[in-house]
Amino acid sequence: MPKTLDFYFDFSSPYAYLASTQIDALATDLGRQVQWFPILLGPMFQAMGSAPLVDIPLKGAYARHDFSRTALLFGIDYREPDEFPIATVAAARAAWFLRSQDMALAGEFSRKVLQAYFADQQDIRDTAVLASIAESVGADSQAMLQAMQTDAIKGMLKEAVSGAMERGVFGSPFIFIDNEGFWGFDRLPHIRMWAAANPA
Amino acid sequence: MPKTLDFYFDFSSPYAYLASTQIDALATDLGRQVQWFPILLGPMFQAMGSAPLVDIPLKGAYARHDFSRTALLFGIDYREPDEFPIATVAAARAAWFLRSQDMALAGEFSRKVLQAYFADQQDIRDTAVLASIAESVGADSQAMLQAMQTDAIKGMLKEAVSGAMERGVFGSPFIFIDNEGFWGFDRLPHIRMWAAANPA
Repeated sequence: MPKTLDFYFDFSSPYAYLASTQIDALATDLGRQVQWFPILLGPMFQAMGSAPLVDIPLKGAYARHDFSRTALLFGIDYREPDEFPIATVAAARAAWFLRSQDMALAGEFSRKVLQAYFADQQDIRDTAVLASIAESVGADSQAMLQAMQTDAIKGMLKEAVSGAMERGVFGSPFIFIDNEGFWGFDRLPHIRMWAAANPA
Repeated sequence: MPKTLDFYFDFSSPYAYLASTQIDALATDLGRQVQWFPILLGPMFQAMGSAPLVDIPLKGAYARHDFSRTALLFGIDYREPDEFPIATVAAARAAWFLRSQDMALAGEFSRKVLQAYFADQQDIRDTAVLASIAESVGADSQAMLQAMQTDAIKGMLKEAVSGAMERGVFGSPFIFIDNEGFWGFDRLPHIRMWAAANPA
């Protein structure tokens, strides 16, 4: 079994969306498999006494500009959602259900949900939107919608969030290669450099 | 007169130190001149309700690790100062005095002060340390120490901080190319990409 690249992300994170368009290519180059970890930033912001980036004075306006500028510089399709940030618990539970079945499927679904929100102005809180994306990747959307209501799937997400915090995750995207953690889209080149200096 | 690359920084900012080792090469490649803007982050953190990076739960430990890891990946000499962060008002006033005489001199001094603090364990609050660095770059250290006590130089730094905030600066390093602002060492490659897409 190949080693992993563990990709922690919140579905409401623009930099996670940007990174989601490049993480597979990075993993392939490094001979690793992406493990998708949908999480929620809310509990982490509480622990830090922080807030969503765009709600912070001075930094918020810069961040909005940097999202679209970074997308432009890297040739990634991006349009700021009309409503942002949003609650992403439904999307995260959906992804955890798919992950419990098949990691690659969960990855494909996650990439498409991020794109739906950050490029295509879709409301990813809407379970009909999530179901439609699930079907587009060949998943059983009815089973998914039912599973999202179960304690098993809700518990899986909760455990993922607390596990992430134990591992030191406090933002999105947060990527581990072996046990080395990197925060942010801007750390993808650092991961490449780190891997070159620390062969598996 | 060539166009500028405006480099805002606090002398207690590790990422500003890392950037200071590369900003001249970047400016040369882009056919620009670095304008050095020593500022103080304190008033900006107050405006944002924020705190020094390393004082933030979860994020602080990551940041300390990322400072040295980033330095290592980019081949930059770095050793975390025993005391960090520190007050940098003396260093900033010294740099503003030199800047009022000669921009290149202020740049050389600023780079050396950052290196003294982040690589050589020197206490850059100490005016003797600042005077010694001033002499090493060929400046009149006595004139500098006297000027640092004057309202003229104190006012210069104050105006620089408020001018920076008006321009949208909230962190360090913060770099403007034309009127496009970029925050962080990790944005140096973005500046390069932006300049390629927006020729002067």
